[in-house]
Amino acid sequence: MRLATLRDGTKDGQLVAVSPDGGRYAIAPVRTLQEALERWTAVVDELAAISDFPEVLDTAQLAAPLPRAWQWLDGSAFQSHGDLMDAVLGVTKPKADKPLMYQGTSDKFYGPHDEVKFLDEALGIDFEGEFGVIVDAVPMGTSAVDAMGHIRLVVQINDWSLRTLAGPEMKTGFGWVQAKPPCGMAPFAVTPDELGDDWRNGRVCLNLNVDWNDQRFGAANGEPMGHGFHELVAHAARTRDLVAGTVIGSGTVSNTNFREIGSSCIAERRGIEVIDEGAARTEFMRFGDSVRMEAVDGTGRAPFGAIQQKVVKA
Amino acid sequence: MRLATLRDGTKDGQLVAVSPDGGRYAIAPVRTLQEALERWTAVVDELAAISDFPEVLDTAQLAAPLPRAWQWLDGSAFQSHGDLMDAVLGVTKPKADKPLMYQGTSDKFYGPHDEVKFLDEALGIDFEGEFGVIVDAVPMGTSAVDAMGHIRLVVQINDWSLRTLAGPEMKTGFGWVQAKPPCGMAPFAVTPDELGDDWRNGRVCLNLNVDWNDQRFGAANGEPMGHGFHELVAHAARTRDLVAGTVIGSGTVSNTNFREIGSSCIAERRGIEVIDEGAARTEFMRFGDSVRMEAVDGTGRAPFGAIQQKVVKA
Repeated sequence: MRLATLRDGTKDGQLVAVSPDGGRYAIAPVRTLQEALERWTAVVDELAAISDFPEVLDTAQLAAPLPRAWQWLDGSAFQSHGDLMDAVLGVTKPKADKPLMYQGTSDKFYGPHDEVKFLDEALGIDFEGEFGVIVDAVPMGTSAVDAMGHIRLVVQINDWSLRTLAGPEMKTGFGWVQAKPPCGMAPFAVTPDELGDDWRNGRVCLNLNVDWNDQRFGAANGEPMGHGFHELVAHAARTRDLVAGTVIGSGTVSNTNFREIGSSCIAERRGIEVIDEGAARTEFMRFGDSVRMEAVDGTGRAPFGAIQQKVVKA
Repeated sequence: MRLATLRDGTKDGQLVAVSPDGGRYAIAPVRTLQEALERWTAVVDELAAISDFPEVLDTAQLAAPLPRAWQWLDGSAFQSHGDLMDAVLGVTKPKADKPLMYQGTSDKFYGPHDEVKFLDEALGIDFEGEFGVIVDAVPMGTSAVDAMGHIRLVVQINDWSLRTLAGPEMKTGFGWVQAKPPCGMAPFAVTPDELGDDWRNGRVCLNLNVDWNDQRFGAANGEPMGHGFHELVAHAARTRDLVAGTVIGSGTVSNTNFREIGSSCIAERRGIEVIDEGAARTEFMRFGDSVRMEAVDGTGRAPFGAIQQKVVKA
């Protein structure tokens, strides 16, 4: 099942069910995705049973599937990304068995085709291609095994990042605030079963194609997460109840063969340049630049649709 | 003007206006505090004009004034607290002119008399007495001078903290997730003018009386913030729009004469013990322990009412 949210002038939009080919939709019998997540087991069968999709879908008119959430917690589950970022930011993190995770702003997720406004190019504007999951209510202390059953939807995310601010904020130990403005989401939130065999061990085993200004920049696969999403959810829920609609991110999708397949963010490429050439030469984004992100399966199908965002001056 | 939220079975409760003596209330003409903040200039006069308070108020039945918020950003604006915490946690933060701030969980604020559940005493259960402000919508890039006008309400907060987890999380650079479960709020959110001369330079210049198991533990004053709330708001809004209803915290209220006036959290007292005696001897909270927090003015009046919370096993 694939779900999306139509803009209708309200903050949370109108939930719709999307046809298997992604081209049509039906208004859902539940008003918002947040409401569906709060009553998931009561509504999922009715949503999944929709087979008549009377309206033509224009993904450019969609909001994020969840236009705002009560909580957004982002992991950093790809080791090759973490290692490169530490090298670039000049930080040394202690080795730990626990997932890395920060709390981000969740009051807004950009729609898949929204323009994204920044005040200044000097902030080091960067994209980060990620996968994410949305859970229903998860009680405090839930184990990773049990957390798997709370993963109701899978999403694709662009975690906008301001690199000039990221290193200094990280060094305070307080995590990121200014360096992490709102994220964008791909058009469709999908149930794990929609991914078939590409959802394995709590991981989205798809290539995430990332294009910067229409040039292929990366095509990393989501499989090599050091911790699966169920483990990230359990980590998040260790000392708090997770409210239904909490979004948990993977962190930047990254593979160890980054020199061959590229990266899902600019900072990572700069890190490779620092290692290989002694200095970064790839600049961050300029106003007018665009980024496209689309996970594809072996048949070329894009279960989440594509994020296609342009950076503009606020 | 003092506002509070009655529990009514909904997630956001029913907004009420509270009488000057804190003993009575009137149902507000706006359903929730969130809605009032979204339309503040349109509703504030009507709210402030309420002078008939027909119902008797039982603060034990109140939710937090804002039972959940789209965003909670907590500063650490008291230098003497930061210095002690660095000593205790064994971290070294770079000196910076910018405010320190982290993003915390905002999907739930405990009501003033709610029991607070934790899984394990070994997590190092601690309170943190703070002040906070709630803003209306603040555009990205708003200056500190202009931010002052967006501060619509002032609140008193207990920022529950799990110290065993805090140091290791801080050392990752990602900030706190597990170490910072939901906060509690005192009964009343007040407009700055309600504080009279005790609201000065973006600071709540009141003593925050903190009692642990009915013993006075601290009475630090809110005035010596290194950055005023308007500066914290501007910091938060540097790279994002702040949604109406964003809550910004001061961090633990702390004064340099902490040896005389005490502390607003246990960790700080442990820090003093480490410095003075070579080791901490004050233990963190046990199940069954209680904490009371009440800011008072020179006449003994408590504008926010009192937080009175008990720690219980989940």
